[in-house]
Amino acid sequence: MSSISVIGAGAWGTALAQVFANNNHDVTLWAREDALAQYISTHHENNIYLAGTPLHPHLKCTSDLSLASRAQDILMAVPAQFMNDVLARMAPQLTSSQSIIICAKGITKDSLELLSDSARHHCPTNPIAVLTGPNFAADIARGLPSASTLACDDAAQAKRIQHHLTSKNLRLYTTNDMIGAQVGGAVKNVIAIACGILHGLKMGESARAALVTRGLAEMARLSVRMGGQRETLMGQCGIGDLMLTCSSTQSRNFSFGARLATGEEHAPSRSVVEGVHTAYAAYHLTEKLNIEMPIVNAVHGCIYQHKSVKDAVHNLLDRPAREEKE
Amino acid sequence: MSSISVIGAGAWGTALAQVFANNNHDVTLWAREDALAQYISTHHENNIYLAGTPLHPHLKCTSDLSLASRAQDILMAVPAQFMNDVLARMAPQLTSSQSIIICAKGITKDSLELLSDSARHHCPTNPIAVLTGPNFAADIARGLPSASTLACDDAAQAKRIQHHLTSKNLRLYTTNDMIGAQVGGAVKNVIAIACGILHGLKMGESARAALVTRGLAEMARLSVRMGGQRETLMGQCGIGDLMLTCSSTQSRNFSFGARLATGEEHAPSRSVVEGVHTAYAAYHLTEKLNIEMPIVNAVHGCIYQHKSVKDAVHNLLDRPAREEKE
Repeated sequence: MSSISVIGAGAWGTALAQVFANNNHDVTLWAREDALAQYISTHHENNIYLAGTPLHPHLKCTSDLSLASRAQDILMAVPAQFMNDVLARMAPQLTSSQSIIICAKGITKDSLELLSDSARHHCPTNPIAVLTGPNFAADIARGLPSASTLACDDAAQAKRIQHHLTSKNLRLYTTNDMIGAQVGGAVKNVIAIACGILHGLKMGESARAALVTRGLAEMARLSVRMGGQRETLMGQCGIGDLMLTCSSTQSRNFSFGARLATGEEHAPSRSVVEGVHTAYAAYHLTEKLNIEMPIVNAVHGCIYQHKSVKDAVHNLLDRPAREEKE
Repeated sequence: MSSISVIGAGAWGTALAQVFANNNHDVTLWAREDALAQYISTHHENNIYLAGTPLHPHLKCTSDLSLASRAQDILMAVPAQFMNDVLARMAPQLTSSQSIIICAKGITKDSLELLSDSARHHCPTNPIAVLTGPNFAADIARGLPSASTLACDDAAQAKRIQHHLTSKNLRLYTTNDMIGAQVGGAVKNVIAIACGILHGLKMGESARAALVTRGLAEMARLSVRMGGQRETLMGQCGIGDLMLTCSSTQSRNFSFGARLATGEEHAPSRSVVEGVHTAYAAYHLTEKLNIEMPIVNAVHGCIYQHKSVKDAVHNLLDRPAREEKE
């Protein structure tokens, strides 16, 4: 039995598998496409999602989900909107001692659930945790230093998983607040789209920093409303991830926002940009839970309601500060 | 009597004066150098500190401190280490109804005092407030949108000043926590130097985001120890300012760190980089107050104790996460 499996061979899943292989773990990476699994096993490179990074020679890759479902710690790195399907396929093969660690960031569009709730639904007796933070796959795969939040409501499991997964270039800070950690990871992608829009409109870096701060307040409101803690957002899963995603053209969400602002991008129906889906889910959560999230609403409006990007930004920035809580 | 005076015609003081002049206030800007004051009055441009930005024609500039000491709201934008001297010169000319609003970021090196404490010392009966946030002078002077924190422990004064100073491109959020607001503004410059060092050493953006998060935790610890609130750092004066200063080569502190890492810069005795002075003051505060601030200590070591930048960074990043609170 492998000590660690990573489910999903996108850039992030591949980078995670590489980190653990470099730390002498027995790691199995699962790719949905058979051709990719074979390529990675043969060439020790993910030529589609992480081209140019030589992978550890002991890193195994398979497209057989049952083979990848045998590890002690199973890291779920498939895109958020596929999480339910993959969990449903894996669940019958798991024993209750195996841990499921959510490594994707998002909110399920149809159920408006956090991903840990999907995991709990499919695997009610397994320990469930969340790994989330400011990590560019390319940085991590190259061995550059990074840190993340490991969220788990079972303190003993949190300690065990932290110990198992901590690696030379991946520091893990623990919290028991899985809700806050997930809301941070999901909503920051929407804030990053908004920051990309400001960047595309050449509104300046001061405006962007101000918007990130207001974005943090929005995600804290949602987190608290869903049962999480405001405090959690001060960690790697909140501030850290906002800092990274909202200031770099390396971020897909940020770049998407910039292209939206310049008219190079339009409402996508099947996007690979997580924030596009999270904007939809978070907007519907604000309606369901009756909370104010002006940035989420603005981004949703631009993507799904064909609102003018410029109008949306001016509505955001011209609204008097004293009417809203920071 | 002018409604607003800005004391200090550096880039930030000039930008602030410009914002208020653009909002139809009667503004007096004070420059230490007579030649600069005359140039600004004649040419409506600050050719030394904010060259290329045409200033409002009604903006008056003087080097006569008594002329500049007559406004209702007096914004103090001289460098932190000159604040004491300038306040001492102004104090005898003020009446107790005039407000003093600290717009510099730093900690007095010899007394280890916050700047509002210096103001209180010199002007014990005047209302005192702090204006601080993520603002690049060049952005603000050009009229780009921005936001800041206005901190004042007198709620009625906070409301009045917020109302008086809020401008088309400057939103103000209020807090009663002057300590937290000032610790945020001061310490972020030290964290920015550390981020510049990581940038100079090409440690990647993920590492930088992780460091910013830990920097926030350090400033929150110092703030709480000095009597401020952790919560305050979630606003523009904390997160917002970190976001801006720690991710941009436009920031003097960030660039200084980058040059320190590449060996282009050495321990400066008379630097214009605020973080260099704050590193000194904050380090001595950690000793006095017996609190842990590993990033502040590392930056202080690199600047004042000739420690190797690489060793300092590795000490920071290799320290096990579980030993410290995030």
